[in-house]
Amino acid sequence: MIKLPCWNWLRHYNPQTMGNDMVAAMIVTVMLIPQSLAYALLAGLPPEMGLYASILPLIAYAIFGTSRTLSVGPVAVVSLMTATAVGKVAQQGTVDYATAAITLALLSGLILLLLGFIRFGFVTNFLSHPVVSGFITASGVLIALSQLSHILGIDASGETLPELTFSLATMIDATNPYTLSIGLCCLLVLHWSRCHLAGQLERLGMATLLAETFARCVPVAVIALSTLIAYVYELNAHGVALVGAIPQGMPAFTQPHIEWTVIRELILPALLVALIGFVESVSVGRTLGAKRRERIDANQELIGLGAANLASAFSGGFPVTGGFSRSVVNFDAGAKTQAASAFTAVGIALAALFLTPALYHLPKVTLAATIVIAVSTLIDWKMIKAAWDYDHADFMAIVITIVLTLTFGVEIGVMSGISASISLHLYRTMRPHFAIVGTVPGTEHYRNIDRHDVLTHNNILSIRIDESLYFANAAFLEEIVDTELAQREGIEHIILMCPAVNMIDLSAVEALQEVNSRLLEREIKLHLSEVKGPVMDALKRSEFLRQLGGNVYLSHHAAVLELTLES
Amino acid sequence: MIKLPCWNWLRHYNPQTMGNDMVAAMIVTVMLIPQSLAYALLAGLPPEMGLYASILPLIAYAIFGTSRTLSVGPVAVVSLMTATAVGKVAQQGTVDYATAAITLALLSGLILLLLGFIRFGFVTNFLSHPVVSGFITASGVLIALSQLSHILGIDASGETLPELTFSLATMIDATNPYTLSIGLCCLLVLHWSRCHLAGQLERLGMATLLAETFARCVPVAVIALSTLIAYVYELNAHGVALVGAIPQGMPAFTQPHIEWTVIRELILPALLVALIGFVESVSVGRTLGAKRRERIDANQELIGLGAANLASAFSGGFPVTGGFSRSVVNFDAGAKTQAASAFTAVGIALAALFLTPALYHLPKVTLAATIVIAVSTLIDWKMIKAAWDYDHADFMAIVITIVLTLTFGVEIGVMSGISASISLHLYRTMRPHFAIVGTVPGTEHYRNIDRHDVLTHNNILSIRIDESLYFANAAFLEEIVDTELAQREGIEHIILMCPAVNMIDLSAVEALQEVNSRLLEREIKLHLSEVKGPVMDALKRSEFLRQLGGNVYLSHHAAVLELTLES
Repeated sequence: MIKLPCWNWLRHYNPQTMGNDMVAAMIVTVMLIPQSLAYALLAGLPPEMGLYASILPLIAYAIFGTSRTLSVGPVAVVSLMTATAVGKVAQQGTVDYATAAITLALLSGLILLLLGFIRFGFVTNFLSHPVVSGFITASGVLIALSQLSHILGIDASGETLPELTFSLATMIDATNPYTLSIGLCCLLVLHWSRCHLAGQLERLGMATLLAETFARCVPVAVIALSTLIAYVYELNAHGVALVGAIPQGMPAFTQPHIEWTVIRELILPALLVALIGFVESVSVGRTLGAKRRERIDANQELIGLGAANLASAFSGGFPVTGGFSRSVVNFDAGAKTQAASAFTAVGIALAALFLTPALYHLPKVTLAATIVIAVSTLIDWKMIKAAWDYDHADFMAIVITIVLTLTFGVEIGVMSGISASISLHLYRTMRPHFAIVGTVPGTEHYRNIDRHDVLTHNNILSIRIDESLYFANAAFLEEIVDTELAQREGIEHIILMCPAVNMIDLSAVEALQEVNSRLLEREIKLHLSEVKGPVMDALKRSEFLRQLGGNVYLSHHAAVLELTLES
Repeated sequence: MIKLPCWNWLRHYNPQTMGNDMVAAMIVTVMLIPQSLAYALLAGLPPEMGLYASILPLIAYAIFGTSRTLSVGPVAVVSLMTATAVGKVAQQGTVDYATAAITLALLSGLILLLLGFIRFGFVTNFLSHPVVSGFITASGVLIALSQLSHILGIDASGETLPELTFSLATMIDATNPYTLSIGLCCLLVLHWSRCHLAGQLERLGMATLLAETFARCVPVAVIALSTLIAYVYELNAHGVALVGAIPQGMPAFTQPHIEWTVIRELILPALLVALIGFVESVSVGRTLGAKRRERIDANQELIGLGAANLASAFSGGFPVTGGFSRSVVNFDAGAKTQAASAFTAVGIALAALFLTPALYHLPKVTLAATIVIAVSTLIDWKMIKAAWDYDHADFMAIVITIVLTLTFGVEIGVMSGISASISLHLYRTMRPHFAIVGTVPGTEHYRNIDRHDVLTHNNILSIRIDESLYFANAAFLEEIVDTELAQREGIEHIILMCPAVNMIDLSAVEALQEVNSRLLEREIKLHLSEVKGPVMDALKRSEFLRQLGGNVYLSHHAAVLELTLES
């Protein structure tokens, strides 16, 4: 059955909440207009598609999504992924290119819905934090570089660091001084207003909220001013690229064009767009939700984002997801429910209806500067440092993801990142920690003989395994027993102490059977102790317990007591 | 430094051991002659290549390998993989085809040597037992079906179950009755002698060892007899395919032909051949070694098998590995050291020098029957049943491997098998077992509140996590805390009891930080108890302990005591 999470807040909706939502919506709308145009530019699409992707998708998410403050729409990383994916099936600037972007939104929407309906939200767990953070950092670098060509006023392109730098290097001679000047001014003003303006205004006595709102309106002011300058000085004649004519009015209902060859090319990118978009969005939603004790349901989020992408596909947009910066602004501006998103959609619709003629003279370089400032926050030095300090395997996963994303582009980057983190995890559990243990004198406790003064018996070898046993470490188990046994004489009993063994798979059971039968040939009995309930249940379904030379003991101490009395 | 394990036995070599080794070598030679011809046929190669692959490789393994009784040479599964891989780059029967097979041996030899030198034997652990067993079962079916065309005397071919059955079905009209009759007779005799002959002879009063040796010579007798029949009755004229002229003499030193396009096509198949060959060989070696307390060193085995494959490549052979049935025969026949392998090589060399003219009239159908009987033991029903009984995830891994190997061929089969078992393992650890625990009255023990009558405190929530925490289950951890907290009122402390947490990766640390900071906003303190040494060491390298609202306690009881006294 289809759930409608909006019912939860619509029931209690009242004028006061509505007031809060409308204020937040106004602020987000002002922020979203330039962003939507800029991300369409980044995706290689006409600017109106950015506006279209910011109307119906917001309403769809408001109906089906569970986060009350998430701001759905075009975002930087997904726009870059769109450009990469669509660039493989069509030429930028053609109708086919726009159609392919719409198809990509349709496919990722369907994938998200499917995952949501079969409650497969867990697959996104395969994306580890280091991989996601490395991927987004590298994407930020690629995005900033790709916008550099707009800021220089040249026509460089490429999907990887080598391609982009080579393309920029060969074309840098063609730099347009007018474009570059506008670009640098915009970058300076935007950077300064983002970092310092609110603080300055506060120091001048302005209220915090007002100062922040004021600072947030700067991008719109920059856009208005640079449009005005371009218009007055006719910068177009000096080679400054303008946004140009944007069709006025609301998006028409568009039926995505289904072509099998295109779909086959786009299905893997669509899956990656869906996964990355979802992971990004849910982590924002969770962070904000936690502050107000609102629960985010991962499977319902899949449906909400799926619906948003379908809505985008059917109204001439491109892939969307929940954006970090806009959602934080929405939250801080006091949005209380998803109605804020719906009001934002109305704001963007009004812009599409009445504002587009005014954007004719907007220089593209201004939008590029907006993007560069926005993505500068994506580069996550803190995470890289934390990974280096914490664990070299996590650090490796980040480095592999960053290097491969920069070198081979977003798709290979994210896929290798996933493989790397899975391989590193398996590698880590492949040679599990184990300890030979003995009795702490006067107690029933057993500790590592290398770390503590403990008592051992000549004929008993106690081995504690500190890991679940499964195919990747099954061979290692056989090795441990062989090696430890080779160093000792006169062993009659081996007790495997299993309090940290959470799972034993069939490969490991076979390894245990192998160990047991080899020990039997040498007249040594294998025992187990402190086996957990679920593990014991599983072992009972195999032949192992029937073949076991020794016994299974509830506590290791009971095992040692009985075996010493016996001999 | 290059190790020479042969030194260990050469030092103590004496006439008595030599006698044992020579007897075993004679029996294995008699078994290996038809097998080497048959597996060359299976790989689509001229018969002499089977003999060449059974001379130098055996000597190379005798020098560098660690198993004293492993019989290296052509084996069924690797020969099938060779046919599949080489069939993609060249046409059967051409010189290019033979060259490609030699290149495949060279590449997999180099891969094995490389893995051995960098001590990367552990990568083979990614192949779980169910996957290997499913793969070999499916390969056995494909091999038997592919030989059916030789038994029917038709020219059917294909690499997958659908291709083979379709090809057989369309050509079955062309069945040659002479070929089919010889094939059925051979199958019957071989099957009967394998299952019953030794027992019958024993019942007739023959000594066990003699009876078994006698039964093992039956394939050679079948070959001799069918060759004689084909010669006397000129069956060639009736359409029975014969082995034909085999070049007489020892293999010349051949320099493998290096062609980059071929190498690029063969590198992945070479990796799979290396992995599957190694896993098969090591498991045989370990099983036999354990019976005589001989240690098999996995990394040295990589070098031994790598050297064997290189030797095969440089003497006109194709990929080789340690075979199960021959090794068991070698062991049972009393082989004491690798010298038995070297003597076998001499036996095969003599066959190549003097026996080949006699094989001119050997019908191919006889060799096909030998293969069918040999692979019938590969089908591992027991493993499939054990997996079904034990765990549905393991069973799924087998089924996926079998179905995909049959449907799409050996390469896709083994790769999907590996992916399936890794995914299923991650899925299993993705939603870890956890329990809300309370004090067992009158003790310091803490048990699951759902299974035991235990005491709890209204303001303390104790959660025991029964799994290592890493990226795949980090999100689940946040969910557990949210869900359990939502069901309770008045909680001031949450204690995570971690005796079964063997590892915490960076993603999980971030999840813990997230949980901690959310709880802090709600004025709830997060505590940890019974954290293992290595895990604690890792946590100290992160920011987590500095941010932690509560404390880390050595025992859960200490935590509960202190927190109850506090409030």
